[in-house]
Amino acid sequence: MNEFDRIATYLAPLTRGTDAALGLTDDAALWQPPPGRAVVLTTDTMVSGCHYLDADGAEAVAAKLLRVNLSDLAAMGATPFGFLLNTALGPHEDEAWLAAFAEGLGADIDRYGMPLLGGDSVATPGPAVLTVTAIGTVQAGRALRRNGAAAGDDIYVSGTVGDAGLGLAVKLGGLTGLPERLSAPLLQRLHRPEPRLALGRGLAEGADAVLASACIDLSDGLLQDLGHVARQSGLSIRLSAPALPLSEPAAEIVADMPERLPELMAAGDDYELAFTAPSGRRQEIASLSRALDLPLTRIGEAVAGPAGEVVVLDATGAAVEIVGAGYQHFS
Amino acid sequence: MNEFDRIATYLAPLTRGTDAALGLTDDAALWQPPPGRAVVLTTDTMVSGCHYLDADGAEAVAAKLLRVNLSDLAAMGATPFGFLLNTALGPHEDEAWLAAFAEGLGADIDRYGMPLLGGDSVATPGPAVLTVTAIGTVQAGRALRRNGAAAGDDIYVSGTVGDAGLGLAVKLGGLTGLPERLSAPLLQRLHRPEPRLALGRGLAEGADAVLASACIDLSDGLLQDLGHVARQSGLSIRLSAPALPLSEPAAEIVADMPERLPELMAAGDDYELAFTAPSGRRQEIASLSRALDLPLTRIGEAVAGPAGEVVVLDATGAAVEIVGAGYQHFS
Repeated sequence: MNEFDRIATYLAPLTRGTDAALGLTDDAALWQPPPGRAVVLTTDTMVSGCHYLDADGAEAVAAKLLRVNLSDLAAMGATPFGFLLNTALGPHEDEAWLAAFAEGLGADIDRYGMPLLGGDSVATPGPAVLTVTAIGTVQAGRALRRNGAAAGDDIYVSGTVGDAGLGLAVKLGGLTGLPERLSAPLLQRLHRPEPRLALGRGLAEGADAVLASACIDLSDGLLQDLGHVARQSGLSIRLSAPALPLSEPAAEIVADMPERLPELMAAGDDYELAFTAPSGRRQEIASLSRALDLPLTRIGEAVAGPAGEVVVLDATGAAVEIVGAGYQHFS
Repeated sequence: MNEFDRIATYLAPLTRGTDAALGLTDDAALWQPPPGRAVVLTTDTMVSGCHYLDADGAEAVAAKLLRVNLSDLAAMGATPFGFLLNTALGPHEDEAWLAAFAEGLGADIDRYGMPLLGGDSVATPGPAVLTVTAIGTVQAGRALRRNGAAAGDDIYVSGTVGDAGLGLAVKLGGLTGLPERLSAPLLQRLHRPEPRLALGRGLAEGADAVLASACIDLSDGLLQDLGHVARQSGLSIRLSAPALPLSEPAAEIVADMPERLPELMAAGDDYELAFTAPSGRRQEIASLSRALDLPLTRIGEAVAGPAGEVVVLDATGAAVEIVGAGYQHFS
């Protein structure tokens, strides 16, 4: 199968007939954004053996590649419009791999309403390198940024924190002997993150004015990511360790191994949203949480202090030391 | 140097302060296109050792990566706005490489007025994989497509054809013994293509109505690329081999080796524009050629016939057989 046949067979159907894709027949995609909407552009690259393992399967890789980009759109409050796909495939990625990869993309294209608009397909003698560029829109003037937090703002996080990190520990053999009922949902969180698009949209566009003063998605870990918010906003953040929302599997593990709690605040790949908001917006945020059926937990506050500082306090108010903040690659 | 330092040192300055880049501090770029403009999105990936050689030097690689994308914008008649950059760098691409690469990007960012808006930087144990996604705009309803040619339309090509292919032959040792005065400009054409942005803009937006009925940039070779136009437009194309515009070096080589002429029509990487236009627009196209100081040569016509067929005729009107149409990779 040559490049043109591969495009026609596996990729062209993924446009779902979207006008902007021009049937993948032209040099570029062509699109007129709706009036009053700003364009949001984000892109992420994943390398085989580094950001994912071959054993994960092509469908899961496709899902993760799309979802990490969708999560970046969510963090800005954007609604997905479409994506570009660049694949540099190696000798290991045969036609069966491509078929499974396209199937994985197709499922999430329908799930999130984000069709393929264009891209490029090349070969590499090395590990596969996959790039998705996601395009979305947000009401002009309503985009969520990292730099808007003010001293006194509440800090929130959606869903639960640390599951993907525990899933990674399971996957890498650093957390053994767990029953399937605990390990399976943790691995699921690692491989199939759920981008918080409805939350981002609600925070940006759901009320009379933007609800969140700053927002970020959790890719590198709660501490590092909130560190970006603190740095860009020119202030410090205080977090309460006991307030951290844990899933049932994570809560069971921490009950057995309390020393794991701090790690969860440093672990990456959760793709929840962390955001700040003035305390006057608490009721609206509680309403949004109920409307979305998604926990939005207040875990701390922004304070005047050194820009970028994030301090974690235990139940007694003493600072907790966190080792090894940041994202762990497979290699 | 960690990832954040590399971004701050080498990449953030490449935004040239553009608002949409948000200083590379956020999850995405944010941009409101001007009213009445459609957005054009195109992306190309290059693999070290395949689409370029390490010996080319990082600055030349940067220039080529940007320019092949700019050429796709030109083919749609778009004006560049900015670009996203994804780098998967291997063990060979050290900090000196990155510094030279950034310098090459910077020179073309200023040359073409297309700043960096965002991107992603990862590591790979394999060959470097580089992706640029270029974003441009075109007046709504004026974009050039591949599918608009009609039987009877003239076929034009800009500049000269086949120089990059001869440059590649020089580079790969298939064309030896040339004096420097011939080989140097051919290699320059291969390494530093000149995207025909002003031409694309002139064809799309320069007159009362769109001047070109179809347009494509020459990346895979004149024959293959015009084959796309013929296929998308549902007709055939007849080209005149003697009409082919050649540079002085190419003309000298063909004078010595007439058997090379057909190869030039199949050779890739010229990044000229080939376009079609009704014969009633000849005067306007001649004016545009003069205004841009760029040869626009009529090399054939579109005719009713099998969709996608491209036939080359010699001076006697007999069909010429072309062997090996299409793009040649290094590996």
